[in-house]
Amino acid sequence: MPTFTLAELANLTNCQLDGEYDCAVHSVASLPSAQTGQLAFLNTKDFRQYLPDTKASAVILKPGDAKNCPCNALITSNPSLAYAKAAEALHPLPKKSPGIHPSAVIGSDTNIDPSVAIGPHCTIGDKVVIEAGVNIGPNCIIEDHCHIQQDSRLLANVTLLNQTRLGQRCLIHSGAVIGSDGFGLADDDGKWVKIPQLGRVVLGNDVEVGAGAAIDRGALDDTILADGVKLDNQVHIAHNVRIGEHTAIAAGVGIAGSSIIGAHCMVAGMCGINGHIELADHVHISGMTAVTRSIQQAGRYTGTIPIMSHRTWRKNFIRLKQLDDITRRLEKLENSSS
Amino acid sequence: MPTFTLAELANLTNCQLDGEYDCAVHSVASLPSAQTGQLAFLNTKDFRQYLPDTKASAVILKPGDAKNCPCNALITSNPSLAYAKAAEALHPLPKKSPGIHPSAVIGSDTNIDPSVAIGPHCTIGDKVVIEAGVNIGPNCIIEDHCHIQQDSRLLANVTLLNQTRLGQRCLIHSGAVIGSDGFGLADDDGKWVKIPQLGRVVLGNDVEVGAGAAIDRGALDDTILADGVKLDNQVHIAHNVRIGEHTAIAAGVGIAGSSIIGAHCMVAGMCGINGHIELADHVHISGMTAVTRSIQQAGRYTGTIPIMSHRTWRKNFIRLKQLDDITRRLEKLENSSS
Amino acid sequence: MPTFTLAELANLTNCQLDGEYDCAVHSVASLPSAQTGQLAFLNTKDFRQYLPDTKASAVILKPGDAKNCPCNALITSNPSLAYAKAAEALHPLPKKSPGIHPSAVIGSDTNIDPSVAIGPHCTIGDKVVIEAGVNIGPNCIIEDHCHIQQDSRLLANVTLLNQTRLGQRCLIHSGAVIGSDGFGLADDDGKWVKIPQLGRVVLGNDVEVGAGAAIDRGALDDTILADGVKLDNQVHIAHNVRIGEHTAIAAGVGIAGSSIIGAHCMVAGMCGINGHIELADHVHISGMTAVTRSIQQAGRYTGTIPIMSHRTWRKNFIRLKQLDDITRRLEKLENSSS
Repeated sequence: MPTFTLAELANLTNCQLDGEYDCAVHSVASLPSAQTGQLAFLNTKDFRQYLPDTKASAVILKPGDAKNCPCNALITSNPSLAYAKAAEALHPLPKKSPGIHPSAVIGSDTNIDPSVAIGPHCTIGDKVVIEAGVNIGPNCIIEDHCHIQQDSRLLANVTLLNQTRLGQRCLIHSGAVIGSDGFGLADDDGKWVKIPQLGRVVLGNDVEVGAGAAIDRGALDDTILADGVKLDNQVHIAHNVRIGEHTAIAAGVGIAGSSIIGAHCMVAGMCGINGHIELADHVHISGMTAVTRSIQQAGRYTGTIPIMSHRTWRKNFIRLKQLDDITRRLEKLENSSS
Repeated sequence: MPTFTLAELANLTNCQLDGEYDCAVHSVASLPSAQTGQLAFLNTKDFRQYLPDTKASAVILKPGDAKNCPCNALITSNPSLAYAKAAEALHPLPKKSPGIHPSAVIGSDTNIDPSVAIGPHCTIGDKVVIEAGVNIGPNCIIEDHCHIQQDSRLLANVTLLNQTRLGQRCLIHSGAVIGSDGFGLADDDGKWVKIPQLGRVVLGNDVEVGAGAAIDRGALDDTILADGVKLDNQVHIAHNVRIGEHTAIAAGVGIAGSSIIGAHCMVAGMCGINGHIELADHVHISGMTAVTRSIQQAGRYTGTIPIMSHRTWRKNFIRLKQLDDITRRLEKLENSSS
Repeated sequence: MPTFTLAELANLTNCQLDGEYDCAVHSVASLPSAQTGQLAFLNTKDFRQYLPDTKASAVILKPGDAKNCPCNALITSNPSLAYAKAAEALHPLPKKSPGIHPSAVIGSDTNIDPSVAIGPHCTIGDKVVIEAGVNIGPNCIIEDHCHIQQDSRLLANVTLLNQTRLGQRCLIHSGAVIGSDGFGLADDDGKWVKIPQLGRVVLGNDVEVGAGAAIDRGALDDTILADGVKLDNQVHIAHNVRIGEHTAIAAGVGIAGSSIIGAHCMVAGMCGINGHIELADHVHISGMTAVTRSIQQAGRYTGTIPIMSHRTWRKNFIRLKQLDDITRRLEKLENSSS
């Protein structure tokens, strides 16, 4: 692994260095476990207790914490960001050597750059284009007419169905399925008839897709995730959804068909978003909320039930079906007392 | 791709043709993007605005929209159904040529029809039966004693655990797992002991299973999905569940063990259905509802919290734990004022 | 399959035998379907109706049911546990013969015990250690530096990302992904920068992971599941979560980053557990509950909305946003009437 001086890291992370310019660090570690030669960071107050006794060679922290730092300090208003950059420099992702493993099966009329690495047991379809620097893990399937742009990375066991397009520097985690059929059904007198799903999935640059996530192809037009969209594990994106730039969606969220999510939104875990609705830019949704309608204004929205003891719940939640009656009885009393 | 005249399509889709019988169309497209030679459809009022300016050669629509159609019209009371049939005719699913890819590993005592196509890197177990016209995508696993009936189709990366049975014309999407163990545990003084899961999964004809869905085998008797059941992505079906004909279950729904779902039900996304309960036929459940009890009557049922601004939520939802108290105080006032 | 006498089974399951010591049984079956030579069990009152007419050779049941048993009885206070042990003896999991399938690709510097079975199309990375008796199904991927301890079992299509550690006798179901990246992002002025995920996943002994489950590696320190933890299908465990011994988590649950779950907890299906919170030992959470805060006391907790007809819901749930106002109006009336 590479080694950096603190001067180099300060430069790289845009931090102010309070300490030895030529002190060398070789790896990152958490504040309580770090040793000499390691870099730690302090972001949340939970970890502040570990600062005075840390054995790290340097700590990335906010200006207000610098006075309590027992070692070299890299000072910034955004320790998470500085840490992300330092950690990436110190722990670069191992890249496989270019080349196609002999057990991989490659279709006809493909255009695969010589710098591409393709792992064992991959199945690559016909007319697939894979640009320079792409890294494809073992047991991946890339169907006909897919196009993967420069430096994207598929981990093990990723499935791209036909015609899927990935931008540059995308990162797709294991078990993800991109380009599956949307759930399009027509009712033929009580029996379901499948509506062919003919669109594609198109991902922009720097999109990350979590383990086990599923993104359905469009019914006719495409399902589109813009640059910088980040999906956590097991997210479901239905057909014809469009998601704006740099929106982050946490694990287990489901977005129903044809909804349009703005840019810079944050959707917490296990929310469900109805079909055919629109969310403005900069909308934040709290976890496990049912987004049942469009939201025109930036801001935070919630529909989560607070947890309580089962006994408290049983006593109170029986009243939910009486709420309308309760309100009407209250109105009656108000009228009689006025 | 095949080309059809409008006379042929009208016949195929059971529509009334208002226009040129011999006009040829070669593909479908959405109303705003369609060009000459393409067929569009108008189903929801959202798209009505695009009708007057469409460049499609023909549009499938309801009788009431025919007067505003600037081109040939295929008129029907059910445009979705007519569109599904036309799209399937114009865009037939590409079938792989019969044959077993040399990289596939095939067990002993199998009975695989010569018309079957099996893709690269598949693993087929012992005593597997695969009937005529079945199409198995790359990297699928079909364990011992599975039986797949005519014309079923497994996309890439599907796993069928041992003894799974698929009916005719089933469609299984990537990442789906059918026949996994149910979550059966016995409590041995605080430690869990696994209860062997010995039943099977049996799917009827025309069942569709979405990407990443998981259907557990029965503990002793079988888990059964009847003809025409449709599961969307990431649905979870626990052991010994039984689902009636033509029930459609949207993405992210979980059904706990031994529950019995009626025929022609519709369960919207991310609902959870308790174990050991029964739903009658024709029950519709709104999204993200917890189905905590049996439902004997057809109809629509809901338990979704409406989304609101976080500020409104914080102010009101603290009161949920006071509901019983609020009701009792109201009763007291009512008694004192009467 | 092996055959046992009732005397042997009584001994094995710690039951009291009321009947023929040398009666032989060869398999288990449900109470209504069992035939001569089969063993059934009666645990829940739902099945009591089938006892008088059962054709089983023996039934495992509680003392109170023994008087109605028409055949041999194996009597115990915990029929589920006795059944689990008997079923495991009568239906042992088939073990593949030791050996590495020639289509599997094995990395360098591995340490794989000769008793290990590795199925077709597996990809095993460098420096992997696999101990005696481990069974790895077809199309699995085990990346560099993984370590799998004795007698663990991976079913088909399991992915272990680099450095994952499994204890003894773990059971990992198809489609599971262990060691995927956590969802760590730093905000760079509206754009997300990935925080490298450098920790591992470490599973104790006897851990079971359901189909399609995803367990993320730690950001720096490890994600840890203690001995005997059981995860059902499609569970999501985020980075740095720690789960205590013998906790069982049902299908579709998501646990956000850095939360600590106690020992012997039970989390019902589709709950969401916030990040950075702690649950004490022996906490039980009802299905679909949002666990929004730490819980210090053992007991049952709930936040589930009861299902109701859509009509009842529409009338009452509009009032949820008025709850604070309702309460204040009630207070006003109370004050004016006192």
